[in-house]
Amino acid sequence: MQRYKAIVAYDGSSFSGYQIQPKGRTVQGEIEQVLRKLHKGQPVGVTASGRTDSGVHARGQVIHFDSTLNLSGQQWIKALNSLLPDDISFSKVEVAAPGFHARFDAVGKEYRYFIYTNPVRDPFRRHYAAHVRGAVDVEAMKRAAVCLVGTHDFTSFCSAKTETENRVRTLSRLNIEEQGGELVLTFAGNGFLYNMVRIITGTLLDVGRGKMDISSIPGVLAAKDRTVAGKTAPAEGLYLWEVFYE
Amino acid sequence: MQRYKAIVAYDGSSFSGYQIQPKGRTVQGEIEQVLRKLHKGQPVGVTASGRTDSGVHARGQVIHFDSTLNLSGQQWIKALNSLLPDDISFSKVEVAAPGFHARFDAVGKEYRYFIYTNPVRDPFRRHYAAHVRGAVDVEAMKRAAVCLVGTHDFTSFCSAKTETENRVRTLSRLNIEEQGGELVLTFAGNGFLYNMVRIITGTLLDVGRGKMDISSIPGVLAAKDRTVAGKTAPAEGLYLWEVFYE
Repeated sequence: MQRYKAIVAYDGSSFSGYQIQPKGRTVQGEIEQVLRKLHKGQPVGVTASGRTDSGVHARGQVIHFDSTLNLSGQQWIKALNSLLPDDISFSKVEVAAPGFHARFDAVGKEYRYFIYTNPVRDPFRRHYAAHVRGAVDVEAMKRAAVCLVGTHDFTSFCSAKTETENRVRTLSRLNIEEQGGELVLTFAGNGFLYNMVRIITGTLLDVGRGKMDISSIPGVLAAKDRTVAGKTAPAEGLYLWEVFYE
Repeated sequence: MQRYKAIVAYDGSSFSGYQIQPKGRTVQGEIEQVLRKLHKGQPVGVTASGRTDSGVHARGQVIHFDSTLNLSGQQWIKALNSLLPDDISFSKVEVAAPGFHARFDAVGKEYRYFIYTNPVRDPFRRHYAAHVRGAVDVEAMKRAAVCLVGTHDFTSFCSAKTETENRVRTLSRLNIEEQGGELVLTFAGNGFLYNMVRIITGTLLDVGRGKMDISSIPGVLAAKDRTVAGKTAPAEGLYLWEVFYE
């Protein structure tokens, strides 16, 4: 029995999220079904670095699983990708240390959020970026973002349903840049609360559209109250980009 | 009654092609249904510069239609796009000369074909570019492309089902360039036969993969026989990019 670590990309558009559930098509469900086929009907469970919601994408989700099959990385990729539907693709499979855990061993993550601001909606971006009509003050968003970088209690910026008691996280980087006519927000940190990236994005967009003043951001953080932050930005703009390990 | 000229973009992935048909979802069908709603149930026919097949995309399809509604370009765009499904989008609507015809008045078209050559398939490109595994000799493809530019009988490069008798067309440009890690083939000409762009692309890919020699291209043209050219490249890589008028 060997533990494997793998990197998976998926287009979240047609999934009811990453995590397996009784109803609905899920990324985990598709992967476990294929692994079962490769193991002659024996169930093989996979553990991811974390879930992603319905419609959220991944470029570099990391999972681990145990297997008695002795395949090389290239053989695993070929076997898995030839059986998986074309909206999931493995790009790397390697032998991991026996105790490696995709979730508990992760020391950080990078998410990216894509926004396009064309006056007219673009049919090719409908599943892959959020559409914001009208001008956005990018410089104001950048200045507001600076207030959020660092170690803070992010209670105001996570779903009210969050059960985690400790909402202190370190946001080590929040870059905003224009790239190919779109706005790309890059978030890096040691951990992210439920909906944190999407609520921060929604709040920064409020600043960019003049609905919220930059000076009120520190107060939003201090309030520790979800209702004072902006709306949760839509799922389609969000990508789990990379997961970091020691 | 006024004639309007409009530019439409659509993601062809979920359509059974542009042209209306008894069964299946079509671009024309969706547009005519929305125009009918805007005209209180009166049918309004639209005429396009030409059809596109199932899975083929358009950035700049051009259509015309007649209407008694007196709306500005911006009003038309707003009215149409708010009722249309999100895989179709109008980017321009303007009053045309009374006799303007989207198909007969077109003097040329530009198509683009996107190819990616990553060893592993990319879930985000599955509907938007053709996937070719392994190395491709781009310089060889460029040299082969030169043999096809100009005025030729393109019988070898159109579907055997083509009913048009005169298969002489002028391909004024066939550029091949690498762009964002993908290969982009740009075709411009005064007219294109059925499947012509996809068969030329399939043939150039045979050259790029060493399955066909550059020196045989003139012979393929001269043969006027579909069976001597390469396979028809898949629909998902093809975009009707622009339609030209006087």
